[in-house]
Amino acid sequence: MRGRKLLMVRPMLIDPEDPSRFKPGSNTIVAIDTLGAGEGELVMLAQGSSARQAEGLKALPVDAAIVGLVDTVSVLGKKTYEAKNS
Amino acid sequence: MRGRKLLMVRPMLIDPEDPSRFKPGSNTIVAIDTLGAGEGELVMLAQGSSARQAEGLKALPVDAAIVGLVDTVSVLGKKTYEAKNS
Amino acid sequence: MRGRKLLMVRPMLIDPEDPSRFKPGSNTIVAIDTLGAGEGELVMLAQGSSARQAEGLKALPVDAAIVGLVDTVSVLGKKTYEAKNS
Amino acid sequence: MRGRKLLMVRPMLIDPEDPSRFKPGSNTIVAIDTLGAGEGELVMLAQGSSARQAEGLKALPVDAAIVGLVDTVSVLGKKTYEAKNS
Amino acid sequence: MRGRKLLMVRPMLIDPEDPSRFKPGSNTIVAIDTLGAGEGELVMLAQGSSARQAEGLKALPVDAAIVGLVDTVSVLGKKTYEAKNS
Repeated sequence: MRGRKLLMVRPMLIDPEDPSRFKPGSNTIVAIDTLGAGEGELVMLAQGSSARQAEGLKALPVDAAIVGLVDTVSVLGKKTYEAKNS
Repeated sequence: MRGRKLLMVRPMLIDPEDPSRFKPGSNTIVAIDTLGAGEGELVMLAQGSSARQAEGLKALPVDAAIVGLVDTVSVLGKKTYEAKNS
Repeated sequence: MRGRKLLMVRPMLIDPEDPSRFKPGSNTIVAIDTLGAGEGELVMLAQGSSARQAEGLKALPVDAAIVGLVDTVSVLGKKTYEAKNS
Repeated sequence: MRGRKLLMVRPMLIDPEDPSRFKPGSNTIVAIDTLGAGEGELVMLAQGSSARQAEGLKALPVDAAIVGLVDTVSVLGKKTYEAKNS
Repeated sequence: MRGRKLLMVRPMLIDPEDPSRFKPGSNTIVAIDTLGAGEGELVMLAQGSSARQAEGLKALPVDAAIVGLVDTVSVLGKKTYEAKNS
């Protein structure tokens, strides 16, 4: 696992009271970054054995990996998130 | 994972106080849609390594997949959900 | 997955304040029934990859299966549950 | 799974306010006992696919197994648990 | 599993109200230590089937393993943790 970048991520939930907003989850997950994600970006996280399906992680003791960078999120037909550099 | 549709789903629980109703869960899960589910539909979700058993997802870093569209739900002998186009 | 019966199950916990009683959990799980369980029966549930070890479920995108029907439960030496037809 | 002993276990957490004590968790887990654990004993539990690594459980739909009997627990350098017959 | 050191670990979350601090989680996890971690050290934990990818744990009924010792943690560009002997 030498040279791997580890990032701390916080799950973002759709706020049930106002679905146009995200509500940060309360837990923190340490994930291997395979994509060069930056601070503040919204990412896709795979957990458990699925994290090991990400490129180059097959035989590593890894249970969380960033497997995608999110461009846009739409909730109930409205765009609620757009990546800065998308 | 190019071209895959990702949907945000919210677990629906049976309300213990009135089992004829669903109570939305508080978390949001991002899942790969393999079935063309639409907004507002009730779906079946498989998580973890089981999600990778869905058609065409074997080697993808996927930990949640929509594996069924729900037609009807019956609780304690009463139908409590029926899909619009079922 | 054609023709499979799906049941909604609710976890039953031992009430810490009165261990002779069950306290229903708050979540609902949709599970494949491999045993012909009926409404109101207490069942054993296997989740995750273990659910796929149940008979006939190997390659299905299934993350919860009913793998046993409970006859009796004993807590601290006292029988606290007995199936009706046991 | 014929003839297997099933036990109900309750997770024990270290009480953050007094680390010399255990605080019982609120959930109950049904686990296969591979070691002859007795009532009131502190045990080690493996969950998920790891439970199936226990001796003789490879192909069973088992997602929780007792894989060890705990002799002693030390927290912050002090022994906080000792098995009666250790 | 003879001769294996087992440690109790407590997850550390980033405090949402003050991201420069850790907030201890409320649960306790028993993990196999493959690295000689000491009391009070911040470690990386792998859970589930990923724990069995750690060196020498392939066929053991292990669902949590310490797979790394943390040197430094940075949150929002500031170093918030540094190991004593790093």
